[in-house]
Amino acid sequence: MALTLQQINTASADEAATLLDGLYEHSPWVAQAALAHRPFRSLAHLKHVMANVVRDAGTDKQLTLIRAHPELAGKAMVSQTLTAESTNEQGKAGLTDCTPEEFARIQQLNADYNAKFGFPFILAVRGPRGVGLSRHEIIDTFARRLDNHPDFELGEALRNIHRIVEIRLNDKFGVEPTLGNQVWDWQEKLSQHSDPGFAEKGQLTVTYLTDAHRACAQRISANMREAGFDEVHIDAVGNVVGRYKADKPGAKTLMTGSHYDTVRNGGKYDGRLGIFTPMACVAELSRQGKRLPFDFEVIAFAEEEGQRYKATFLGSGALIGQFNPAWLDQKDADGITMRTAMQHAGLCIDDIPKLKRNPADYLGFVEVHIEQGPVLTELDLPLGIVTSINGGVRYLCEVTGMASHAGTTPMNRRRDALSAVAELALYIEQRAARDGDSVGTIGICTVPGGSTNVVPGRCQFTLDLRAPNDPQRDAMVTDVLAELARICEQRGLRHTTEVTMKAAAAPSAAEWQQRWERAVDSLGVPLYRMPSGAGHDAMKLHEVMPQAMLFVRGQNAGISHNPLESTTSDDMQLAVEAFMSLLENLAAESA
Amino acid sequence: MALTLQQINTASADEAATLLDGLYEHSPWVAQAALAHRPFRSLAHLKHVMANVVRDAGTDKQLTLIRAHPELAGKAMVSQTLTAESTNEQGKAGLTDCTPEEFARIQQLNADYNAKFGFPFILAVRGPRGVGLSRHEIIDTFARRLDNHPDFELGEALRNIHRIVEIRLNDKFGVEPTLGNQVWDWQEKLSQHSDPGFAEKGQLTVTYLTDAHRACAQRISANMREAGFDEVHIDAVGNVVGRYKADKPGAKTLMTGSHYDTVRNGGKYDGRLGIFTPMACVAELSRQGKRLPFDFEVIAFAEEEGQRYKATFLGSGALIGQFNPAWLDQKDADGITMRTAMQHAGLCIDDIPKLKRNPADYLGFVEVHIEQGPVLTELDLPLGIVTSINGGVRYLCEVTGMASHAGTTPMNRRRDALSAVAELALYIEQRAARDGDSVGTIGICTVPGGSTNVVPGRCQFTLDLRAPNDPQRDAMVTDVLAELARICEQRGLRHTTEVTMKAAAAPSAAEWQQRWERAVDSLGVPLYRMPSGAGHDAMKLHEVMPQAMLFVRGQNAGISHNPLESTTSDDMQLAVEAFMSLLENLAAESA
Repeated sequence: MALTLQQINTASADEAATLLDGLYEHSPWVAQAALAHRPFRSLAHLKHVMANVVRDAGTDKQLTLIRAHPELAGKAMVSQTLTAESTNEQGKAGLTDCTPEEFARIQQLNADYNAKFGFPFILAVRGPRGVGLSRHEIIDTFARRLDNHPDFELGEALRNIHRIVEIRLNDKFGVEPTLGNQVWDWQEKLSQHSDPGFAEKGQLTVTYLTDAHRACAQRISANMREAGFDEVHIDAVGNVVGRYKADKPGAKTLMTGSHYDTVRNGGKYDGRLGIFTPMACVAELSRQGKRLPFDFEVIAFAEEEGQRYKATFLGSGALIGQFNPAWLDQKDADGITMRTAMQHAGLCIDDIPKLKRNPADYLGFVEVHIEQGPVLTELDLPLGIVTSINGGVRYLCEVTGMASHAGTTPMNRRRDALSAVAELALYIEQRAARDGDSVGTIGICTVPGGSTNVVPGRCQFTLDLRAPNDPQRDAMVTDVLAELARICEQRGLRHTTEVTMKAAAAPSAAEWQQRWERAVDSLGVPLYRMPSGAGHDAMKLHEVMPQAMLFVRGQNAGISHNPLESTTSDDMQLAVEAFMSLLENLAAESA
Repeated sequence: MALTLQQINTASADEAATLLDGLYEHSPWVAQAALAHRPFRSLAHLKHVMANVVRDAGTDKQLTLIRAHPELAGKAMVSQTLTAESTNEQGKAGLTDCTPEEFARIQQLNADYNAKFGFPFILAVRGPRGVGLSRHEIIDTFARRLDNHPDFELGEALRNIHRIVEIRLNDKFGVEPTLGNQVWDWQEKLSQHSDPGFAEKGQLTVTYLTDAHRACAQRISANMREAGFDEVHIDAVGNVVGRYKADKPGAKTLMTGSHYDTVRNGGKYDGRLGIFTPMACVAELSRQGKRLPFDFEVIAFAEEEGQRYKATFLGSGALIGQFNPAWLDQKDADGITMRTAMQHAGLCIDDIPKLKRNPADYLGFVEVHIEQGPVLTELDLPLGIVTSINGGVRYLCEVTGMASHAGTTPMNRRRDALSAVAELALYIEQRAARDGDSVGTIGICTVPGGSTNVVPGRCQFTLDLRAPNDPQRDAMVTDVLAELARICEQRGLRHTTEVTMKAAAAPSAAEWQQRWERAVDSLGVPLYRMPSGAGHDAMKLHEVMPQAMLFVRGQNAGISHNPLESTTSDDMQLAVEAFMSLLENLAAESA
């Protein structure tokens, strides 16, 4: 019979420890130490407390915990990760019938891994959806992680242990992330559509109004109808708009959504998680026969990434009247204009101006998004409260010195363009860190026509500077450009800078941020407030109505715009629950 | 009637000042101040003293001196640079008959230049050979210098003024650099041979055993015979070997020479100056009917630059038995093996081992070379004494961190590969400078697949570290690699390093360096000792016999491996005179 949290909270410490036995491999001390933090408000709370126990235990105990696990190899791997109740998963993970070549490969990886890190490879082989990774995925992950830095890999090992424990807890408590699984499965299904040239390689690429893009719109429409939306249509720019009507006519509307286009060879969750999470809420509301006292509008934005045409945020921009008719004449790489693409898709270009929303009809805009960064995963937190979408500015810069012979030019007679950029790079690190929540990056740096034996005469580089509000960003920009000028003056160099992008910050509306905070708190998950370093559709809606965002933890160090982008169905479940809580609280406020 | 140095040295200060009037434009104070340093040992001495007066006068007086010159424009330019005696040169410089377009271009350049620098453009329009630059060369130089950093351009303006004064002094004293002109003209003539694909563009490229290369060998052979060498032949690897026999049989031999191949789109003087300078000595000795008490062997080495095949120093290496037969199977870009190229050129491959010299037959090896660096030109010195050819080592390196989103990765969670390389670049600057005469360079630096909005996950870069002796070089290498390891450890990055080149230092033989010092001192030119940052043929001969080198100042900041490589026939004259002095002193020693 499944455990309940109440049993844990009310049992004696010894009894509770016994009930929680078998979570951390041969390491009952983790659960024991966690019990000091009872009562647990939720399973998520218990998980987080246990992760903190491991974090605070120090490296020696962490290594002991890791080394308590057997090496990955056929049976051994299965016993390491699967409880007796889950033997039906073994076949899915497929490690019981490795080919001899695969077995040999794993043996070699085990040897290399242990030699490099000094502990066995730990992988939660049931994977982010809990249904098991393929042998192919397991071996690829092993090979990839062998390449990690030891510090980082220690963290990855612990995170995989926490994930194994999460699945064991679900089994122990008889819990299944049903709505999270639904969200996961919708995204998996949607990811089967990909543009030509990428689909063949198993890569996900969905750019504006391609066949794959239009198939996505159709599939999302169908999903919305199945979920119980009252009205679903594809609008004049290709947004899929679903409306779950209020319990009374004439009510205001809460808008949410995110984009369904992707970057080239991107991830499955960027954007799409913000469509399917509220869709799961509507499915659940509809299943329960519940109505809200406001209309709930879920929009799958057709375009945010600016991949096929240079028109980022086209989908959300159209809702605030920012569709630029000049874009219609832009051509893609094949010479197809946006106008032609829209006509081909059957979109009614003349209706675009009508998409503009009247803010007076709206309560506000909320958006769920995968974090696309490492913060939540490193803190073992599933959800994060966005305080602001950072304002950013990008520059293309060039420093010009004098190319000269690396052997014959004494150090004190050089005009080395690269050294100047090096000095700037270190300044930016310090300057951004001083703010705490600013970021500054030199992402591209080249010495055009450089040679090993030539002092760099030119260096081209980019700047990307972001901060949670515009004055903070602008102060940083001023300092960085002044430092660049100072460095060049001191070194006798010239420089040019050109702004290539500038975006205002979009601080969250206080009352909407608080609604997300209440929602997350209601799940027993610790609150963590953070700026969004990346831009999101909410930036556009921000211009006309209050907005606030919720972040969901990403696996693999939060990597995004990459096929390794990943999050678990358990975290998706928490996102759905947080969204449901927000809707319920808002309904209570409105009532 | 022409002035003599004795007149200047013996006249009263007022008389001497009057005699030297008109050198520095409207600025008699320069010559007046220089007179305090009488007696002048040579015109070169006087020139250097006057240049020092200007150097020590400070920026304000330098600007006044520069502004005393008229702007460049037709007549004005001519009057600025040519004395009355030189009106026959006006036609050669060609500025009296500019086209209207050229005149307009010059007007625009004058305006832009004055706006940028605040002083008029100064150019010694009689050029490095004293016969006048073409209108095309003048306008190109103007446009190019407009791009300079203000500090550097101030120096260029002063250097051009010194060059104008040099030519005026020659006129005043009735002096002509006859042997320097001869050397200049030989080099100019030789530069007319260039490989296909470059010749058409007016670029100089002579790689091993091409038609142009073989034409060069023939021309050098002919020049040697005309100069009065007793024996001239092309050896089994394509070296042109001339011998001017001693006054008696059985004497030992002094060897000198340098290479006649070039890099792609290279300069006219790199290598070749070291062939034609001693050739001018032989021409002069022969003209005077003089013999030395030792054989004088001048070798034009066929290959040093490693452009067509990966076999640098092939020509000088063959003389010390370092020809590697495996090289014969190397193919050039067109698939032609070195063996085929040598057979096509009629070289007798079987005879290559016979080229190896017996060190017992030799007094030593000396080499004249253009500096290929900025030191002498910045110090207003025509000649430099080489103390050592630096030992060098090159590495190809890569730092691996973790690529992540530039917006979403907080500063304290980054593993930025570029920042690590930036830290190393600044360390190298300091570490090399600490030695005084070491140099360290990161010449290539790239973020493979980098993007503006991605924290660099990888950075590939090169290291080039050189020092005048091997222990000094090795100590620097140890420190730099340790610092790279420390930086990567601290930042949680991995790194790889691969040695791509390693060459031992070749310190000058003390007694041969002293012979060059005596020779330079005898010209009244201040001694300046310096390491050679670049490799030279002398490095190879160093392995079997004592060697020492003499450097000649390069114009245009000492640029080399570039069509802008340049030196004046006056400096070449001094190089010939120094070489003659070395030969005469050595003859006196041997007598």
